[in-house]
Amino acid sequence: MFGRTEKKVSADMVSASHRLLYKGGYVRESTAGRYYFLPLGWKVFNKIASIVREEMNKAGAQEMIAPVLHPLELWKETNRTNEAGFELMRIKDRRGSEFALGGTAEEMFVDLVRKYQLSYKDLPFNIYQLSTKFRDELRARGGLLRVREFVMKDAYSFHVDEEDFKKEYENMRTTYMKIFNRLGLDPVVVESDNGYIGGEYCHEFVVESDAGESKFFVNEDRSYAAHEDVAKFIKYKDLEPEDMKPREDVEGVGMIGVAPLAQHLKIPVEKTTKTLLFETEKGEVVAAAVNGIYDINEAKLKKILHCTDLHLTNADKIKELTGSEVGYAGILNLPSSIKVILDDSLKGRMNFECGANKTNFHSININFGRDLPEPSEFYDIAMAKEGHLCIKGGTLQEKKGIEVGNIFQLGYHYSKLMKGADFTDRDGKRKPYYMGCYGIGLGRTMATIVEKYHTENSITWPETLAPYDYEIIGIDMDKPEAYEKANNLYNKMLSEGKDVLFDDRIKTTAGEKFADADLIGAKEKIVVSQKSS
Amino acid sequence: MFGRTEKKVSADMVSASHRLLYKGGYVRESTAGRYYFLPLGWKVFNKIASIVREEMNKAGAQEMIAPVLHPLELWKETNRTNEAGFELMRIKDRRGSEFALGGTAEEMFVDLVRKYQLSYKDLPFNIYQLSTKFRDELRARGGLLRVREFVMKDAYSFHVDEEDFKKEYENMRTTYMKIFNRLGLDPVVVESDNGYIGGEYCHEFVVESDAGESKFFVNEDRSYAAHEDVAKFIKYKDLEPEDMKPREDVEGVGMIGVAPLAQHLKIPVEKTTKTLLFETEKGEVVAAAVNGIYDINEAKLKKILHCTDLHLTNADKIKELTGSEVGYAGILNLPSSIKVILDDSLKGRMNFECGANKTNFHSININFGRDLPEPSEFYDIAMAKEGHLCIKGGTLQEKKGIEVGNIFQLGYHYSKLMKGADFTDRDGKRKPYYMGCYGIGLGRTMATIVEKYHTENSITWPETLAPYDYEIIGIDMDKPEAYEKANNLYNKMLSEGKDVLFDDRIKTTAGEKFADADLIGAKEKIVVSQKSS
Repeated sequence: MFGRTEKKVSADMVSASHRLLYKGGYVRESTAGRYYFLPLGWKVFNKIASIVREEMNKAGAQEMIAPVLHPLELWKETNRTNEAGFELMRIKDRRGSEFALGGTAEEMFVDLVRKYQLSYKDLPFNIYQLSTKFRDELRARGGLLRVREFVMKDAYSFHVDEEDFKKEYENMRTTYMKIFNRLGLDPVVVESDNGYIGGEYCHEFVVESDAGESKFFVNEDRSYAAHEDVAKFIKYKDLEPEDMKPREDVEGVGMIGVAPLAQHLKIPVEKTTKTLLFETEKGEVVAAAVNGIYDINEAKLKKILHCTDLHLTNADKIKELTGSEVGYAGILNLPSSIKVILDDSLKGRMNFECGANKTNFHSININFGRDLPEPSEFYDIAMAKEGHLCIKGGTLQEKKGIEVGNIFQLGYHYSKLMKGADFTDRDGKRKPYYMGCYGIGLGRTMATIVEKYHTENSITWPETLAPYDYEIIGIDMDKPEAYEKANNLYNKMLSEGKDVLFDDRIKTTAGEKFADADLIGAKEKIVVSQKSS
Repeated sequence: MFGRTEKKVSADMVSASHRLLYKGGYVRESTAGRYYFLPLGWKVFNKIASIVREEMNKAGAQEMIAPVLHPLELWKETNRTNEAGFELMRIKDRRGSEFALGGTAEEMFVDLVRKYQLSYKDLPFNIYQLSTKFRDELRARGGLLRVREFVMKDAYSFHVDEEDFKKEYENMRTTYMKIFNRLGLDPVVVESDNGYIGGEYCHEFVVESDAGESKFFVNEDRSYAAHEDVAKFIKYKDLEPEDMKPREDVEGVGMIGVAPLAQHLKIPVEKTTKTLLFETEKGEVVAAAVNGIYDINEAKLKKILHCTDLHLTNADKIKELTGSEVGYAGILNLPSSIKVILDDSLKGRMNFECGANKTNFHSININFGRDLPEPSEFYDIAMAKEGHLCIKGGTLQEKKGIEVGNIFQLGYHYSKLMKGADFTDRDGKRKPYYMGCYGIGLGRTMATIVEKYHTENSITWPETLAPYDYEIIGIDMDKPEAYEKANNLYNKMLSEGKDVLFDDRIKTTAGEKFADADLIGAKEKIVVSQKSS
């Protein structure tokens, strides 16, 4: 067998899957985030791929494959070349044609389908591929957990309308659970945000793990699970009705944090307001405000603003716009050029504090309708935290996990942006497809399985994934008698068609062989030595 | 089933495989030379891939996978970024790292192997992958026959020495024949030139076909088969010994071709000499000469010159170098800066003609040792042609075919260029690996099978490759009774685990259904209609 176990691991291999897949001779890095799968790793990978295929096919999806290089014009049709958030790689060929190295393949599948000029009778269908995807990530980390090149199963479904899509969504949701369960995983189905429509039909499959980068919240009975970017919670409300008090501007220099501020102003912290000024990629400046006991969730804010990039406005610009030094921003006295987004934790509040946009001053006893116009709209831009009240009962608990798959409603997003992506309906009219998409990262799934099924120095693959059914561990292989015994058994098992590995190394100690066998994780280990009968 | 048969084909679909794979709904072009494999095509493709894998594994090779993006530094180590002949695509990531889109993966496999610092005990091994390859071809043509993106099975073997390599070469040669035979193909194993070492251990597997681009020669009993770039033949020799005749310079203006020239000079055409001046990519000028009855084979010449590009010297430069107009070049009176390469058809010749490098003049009765120094070396730079005498007996016949695979001796080429690509031998010394490589183009193989197994409007897949075992052709599907009958059969067969397709289309005529069934080529077709019992 080519590839071998390694004894030393480098210090940057912090996750167990990174360390054990390297030590076991499953994978090896080429450049950062780009991996070879060695014969042992490729065997396991293909077992995972087979299970994904089997379940997808059973669910009625059809496998095909699209080219790796996508004509860049297609990505231009959907404005995805301009989205700063997407790590797209581009290449030009010798004739000057431009291509994207596929990160996902919505455009490619829509382009293929629109060529067919289908009718409602051809719908619905779900087509998928297992293919290499590219993401020009700034940082790769954690071995197979975050890479720049990986095999993804990506499926795209085409429907006459939303109702039909919903059936396939449920079909995929149950199919995904079957797939992950067969792989020994029990992911949480987490509400999330795909940047398109979101809401009810957008979920990530997240396996709880400290090695993961996905933060999400669940309540005690798990009737609610949502990604931190979208997690909702029941917000604090003043219990007692109050009378309006007279507004005051109170001096308070260099207060960091709402707690010291509240203490200084002699008000409950629940009366404070956190206001931050952001700038979008288009240069628009936005004032976002939440009750001081909460933080602002930039993902929620981005979604409301339909922007791809958001950063804090710098001190100079704040001074220029509000006339005040940084640290005293509020929703009072703002120039009309600044858009104001208020969290619904401000709704119905009375006598609250907020920055006066006046250096060194904070205003208290502010009231809508008197000090500020009554806002026409409130939004949810607050960050959920452990302990917040869950909208489905109980309290939120924060969890970390690895996103191994996702199922997304695309709706008309692509079919409306891409000309001619329509079908003939019963009424003879051309209508855009209603779409969904469904992804599974295969390498990351493999690493997640290791995160779950390992000890310090071994991987215990679920039975269906073990790279070998049997491993013969030959001891005393320098003694002809022992070698012959082991080799005879090996040949016998091979001739019986058994999936068996034979460790016939001579200069390796029994201890090393047992350690290696633990890393390789065959279903059954058979020890043959001089003493074996 | 997504994807459907097409009635119209475009005029540029000249090859049968291009036409039928498109018509049958197997593949569809994205941009020129980049194809989608639709569900039907992907099924067949994977059957081919399975056979390749099975036989490679049986032969002891081990499957793995390397990243698609190769660090460009590796290609620089082997000077392959400079080889004009190779259509390499390059890309830079956001951190400025440069990559090659793999066309083949010698560097990647050598780089992986050298990291292991192996010893002779770990050798030999043969590791392979099935992965997407990229070639920035100027022209794509013939559907899957010449594309810019394709899946190739590429294998690389590592050995202690040439002798050990030869065993694996024979192993791969027989494995390839098994693979192709199982795929219904009977390729000719053709001697060829891989640009490295060539000679005895360099063969292409070529399937005879008019759709092919590979020209090769065989003798009657097929004991000899060689690509046109390397085909040898027994060259013409004067039968009778002659006395030296006095040299003459004869006027002869604007003679095109050796036959009119010979007639004008009143000599047999066998006495003429064809001399051409070439320039290499390094600017070196070379005079190449063959007996006038032959043509110059540029591939053979390139190999002798170790150059990657060769083009005819232009008229101005010829005048500058030889003092003569173009058309009168010869091996007489050449400046010493010009390298002379003589074909062995000039060896032992007497009283021959050759260009005088003197405008309007040809010299006859030229003799080595008198008019020219006796050459120290002769080469084989002549082009083989139909009817030439074969070195293994009989005469050469010209054939056209499709190259579906190749097996190449790489020797020390890569292991010597890439630092540290060595193993510890028995004597404790580090020695470079001796290597071989072995490729199969899977899409092209699929197209070749269609070229062989088709009629005007149907594909008759070999049994092992048929996309379905059964197709139920439902007739009168608008009649509930007929539909129920067909559908019951379909469900029964499905429940029995049978691989069956059901054509249940309502608005399609029986004729169209039969035509489509011919394109799809299921092993067995079952017709169910109103009248079926």
